[in-house]
Amino acid sequence: MPSETKFNTLLEKIYEINDLQKASALLGWDRQVNMPKAGVMARAQQLATLNRIVHTTFTADEMGELIEAAAAELNGASYDSDQASLIRYLRESYADSRKLPAEFVVRRTMISNQAHAAWEQAREKDDFASFRPWLEKIIGLAQEMAGYYGYEDEKYDALLDQYEPDMKTAEVRAIFQALKESLAPLVEAIRERGRPLDDAILHQAYVIARQEQFVRAMATAVGYDFSRGHLGTAVHPFAASFSRDDARITTRWYADFLSPALFGTLHESGHAMYEQGTHPDLARTPLARGASMGIHESQSRMIENIVGRSRGFWQAHFPKLQEIFPEQLGQATAGDFYRAINKVQPSLIRVDADELSYNLHIILRFELEQAMLNGDLVAADVPAAWNDKIRQLLGVVPPTDRDGCLQDVHWSTPSFGYFPTYALGNLYAAQFYETAQQQDPAVGQELAEGKTTALLAWLRENIHQHGRKFTPAELVQRATGRPLSHDPFLRYATAKFSEVYNL
Amino acid sequence: MPSETKFNTLLEKIYEINDLQKASALLGWDRQVNMPKAGVMARAQQLATLNRIVHTTFTADEMGELIEAAAAELNGASYDSDQASLIRYLRESYADSRKLPAEFVVRRTMISNQAHAAWEQAREKDDFASFRPWLEKIIGLAQEMAGYYGYEDEKYDALLDQYEPDMKTAEVRAIFQALKESLAPLVEAIRERGRPLDDAILHQAYVIARQEQFVRAMATAVGYDFSRGHLGTAVHPFAASFSRDDARITTRWYADFLSPALFGTLHESGHAMYEQGTHPDLARTPLARGASMGIHESQSRMIENIVGRSRGFWQAHFPKLQEIFPEQLGQATAGDFYRAINKVQPSLIRVDADELSYNLHIILRFELEQAMLNGDLVAADVPAAWNDKIRQLLGVVPPTDRDGCLQDVHWSTPSFGYFPTYALGNLYAAQFYETAQQQDPAVGQELAEGKTTALLAWLRENIHQHGRKFTPAELVQRATGRPLSHDPFLRYATAKFSEVYNL
Repeated sequence: MPSETKFNTLLEKIYEINDLQKASALLGWDRQVNMPKAGVMARAQQLATLNRIVHTTFTADEMGELIEAAAAELNGASYDSDQASLIRYLRESYADSRKLPAEFVVRRTMISNQAHAAWEQAREKDDFASFRPWLEKIIGLAQEMAGYYGYEDEKYDALLDQYEPDMKTAEVRAIFQALKESLAPLVEAIRERGRPLDDAILHQAYVIARQEQFVRAMATAVGYDFSRGHLGTAVHPFAASFSRDDARITTRWYADFLSPALFGTLHESGHAMYEQGTHPDLARTPLARGASMGIHESQSRMIENIVGRSRGFWQAHFPKLQEIFPEQLGQATAGDFYRAINKVQPSLIRVDADELSYNLHIILRFELEQAMLNGDLVAADVPAAWNDKIRQLLGVVPPTDRDGCLQDVHWSTPSFGYFPTYALGNLYAAQFYETAQQQDPAVGQELAEGKTTALLAWLRENIHQHGRKFTPAELVQRATGRPLSHDPFLRYATAKFSEVYNL
Repeated sequence: MPSETKFNTLLEKIYEINDLQKASALLGWDRQVNMPKAGVMARAQQLATLNRIVHTTFTADEMGELIEAAAAELNGASYDSDQASLIRYLRESYADSRKLPAEFVVRRTMISNQAHAAWEQAREKDDFASFRPWLEKIIGLAQEMAGYYGYEDEKYDALLDQYEPDMKTAEVRAIFQALKESLAPLVEAIRERGRPLDDAILHQAYVIARQEQFVRAMATAVGYDFSRGHLGTAVHPFAASFSRDDARITTRWYADFLSPALFGTLHESGHAMYEQGTHPDLARTPLARGASMGIHESQSRMIENIVGRSRGFWQAHFPKLQEIFPEQLGQATAGDFYRAINKVQPSLIRVDADELSYNLHIILRFELEQAMLNGDLVAADVPAAWNDKIRQLLGVVPPTDRDGCLQDVHWSTPSFGYFPTYALGNLYAAQFYETAQQQDPAVGQELAEGKTTALLAWLRENIHQHGRKFTPAELVQRATGRPLSHDPFLRYATAKFSEVYNL
């Protein structure tokens, strides 16, 4: 980065804001991993104070002037340069942040933290009624926020844009519709002609300490760097990074079901590897993050599914799993395990869903969020609306709200607009992987041996190192030579599941 | 707290500064409990930014004016009131903080964090040479800091005052000398006439998961509230609190030695119970902490030793320990265990030392710190000086620096002046306990049954609830009716060890 005065002054201020944001991120991480429940009010206040300082510092008039003065110094810096990219990002972020009153930022933090604690309890006790008043407040915050940010076509655009810059609700709707229609024949074929699959081997007694030993080995195998990371436990697994040298994952453990810890860990490893792979020159700036939530999700879904649910990966690693759990898996083959983890079956829990029905879980949430945001669905009616829609989409009905509308953390914060990025992530992932494979044949060859060195090198080069320098659309174009399409995902899914189900 | 304008304005600012200090404390806690080593530079920057903001906010001219304006409103508030106590504390703290340049605060944070990481590695590898340059910087920081704070008699006073307000180095020296002389006949008698004790039962294979189960039960037994706490693992155990509802402990585990995890946990529980017991009205203010490090240490040493190494406590709880470790302890009696944990034997490691030689470990550090601070001892000569002095004082010589001058965390931060508070803690503890027992006979009766309800009630009433409202001298006078004296500790130690050693 250059030594001119204004830019460096800006950089120093941005570094410090970033330090505070990372402190805030650590307080949030800790809240979910270590904090006793009783600590929630004090933690909410601490977070509110940090977020208020970040907000008022970043939205001050002088910051805008400094950004423009620094930009003026950079005349001639190439579009791709770190400096120009930082200015582009800061201009957008500054304009957006200025739309939110500081009072709102503080209130949002306080409510979110308390709502999160209420959600955890409600989920544990399967008690939607105790969460309802908090959901009302959250819906109110989301509506208020959409009002501040503003929108041209649909209210939902205002929030979606925070997670997937430049993406419109109408686009997402069209993509989801096309996806649903294109996948229908495949799902139908599986139901009618697929050989039945049995996933009973996943549901056995698996001692948690040994699960941990194995999932650590698998996280390492896919490329997660534990020397710059940490594995914790959380009710709702997530990844969080406090620098490229401290990017953490969390998972959850069931003593009678292997998949959640294993695939949760692989998923979060994909997220954390993205942060670990950002270029060191971007450190301490807001560019040292993912380009968008959708792009971030492409990394986690790629590691979880395209890598972690592939035949080659398990041909290579199943013997180790067998060694750790000889009683449970001594009689099974790598092929049995591969088929078990790829069983397509409509189910209740999004994070445990198969790759084909997963997107339907997202469509459900996408539609309910819009209804809540537009005032067409009030908090009290969410459980019934949820159950109706999941029956329509997946043909299953949750026996409890815990397995229904209380399953996800997202509505304990006003992060409406986030869910669609999960499905977009599947599409980005397939498109990235297809390109990587075409550009470097070693990617596919290695995966057949359970390795990801070539894939990770491609991701580092084309995705990770850039952090948030480019918009999602720019990044996809640069990395794959074309805009986002759902075709690669369809090709991937059709090929894989035709083989799995012997269609 | 009152509703007058200036005071409330002050309170809001103090709340926010406290939030940032607690955020900083969490970043520090995390650094020792979860953070991968690679994260150290980013974490140092985050802490430096937080500490700089706290420092510049608190030392601004307006803060001084606000403190005085708020004080003026409080005319007539009693000395004991929360409001008057807060103003007293803030005035002192403001004057002290103004003596440090912001640049120094940032530099100190950056160096301490890197020195801490260097110390951890040096200790692990028993490599003093790699730590030497950092120790030089730390000594330099301590000297610089003493210069900023200033002093009348001795340089060491400037730093001691940060941990034990109003205490002078000369006083500490006199107390330590008297203590050494008074304890000498007891130690001599034990060596000459005491029945030999065997602590081999402590050094056996103890599965760590079961140790954890037991130490959690013991922490609960002494009164630590896990619903407002958390137990983590750290190389150098410590307690940290982020609110009275989130006061955490750490310990360390050895698979072949029971004492460190057990007594480390009890020790840190004592610290954390103090923070858990501060009055809710003091929340979010700097008064919601211990009166001094010495008073804090009185709580940890009381729980660790007076309670946790008492005959009654183990008569009550040994059966549970036996149940968890039947192979190791099936043949032992509560009496055997009680004698093993009270074996007096000069040894190398401070935190594992018996109650009599513990104070000699402190005297060693107290003297070396003064020499370093005064420029009479340079970093390179510390290992030799350490080994010389521990041979003089305790008759033992560390085979490695790891068991010598690298054992403690303190010199990886410029916290010179802290060590004496450990020995003062022993004296405060004995004086508090003696008074509690006199004022409420249930204290002693309950302890004989392994319970601490009455003791905890006395501590809550006389010590905990007040937080930092009073100076250590004021608190001791209020709670016990007289100034600090080493007599109660001598009475306690003489009675206990005469019985243990059958003198």
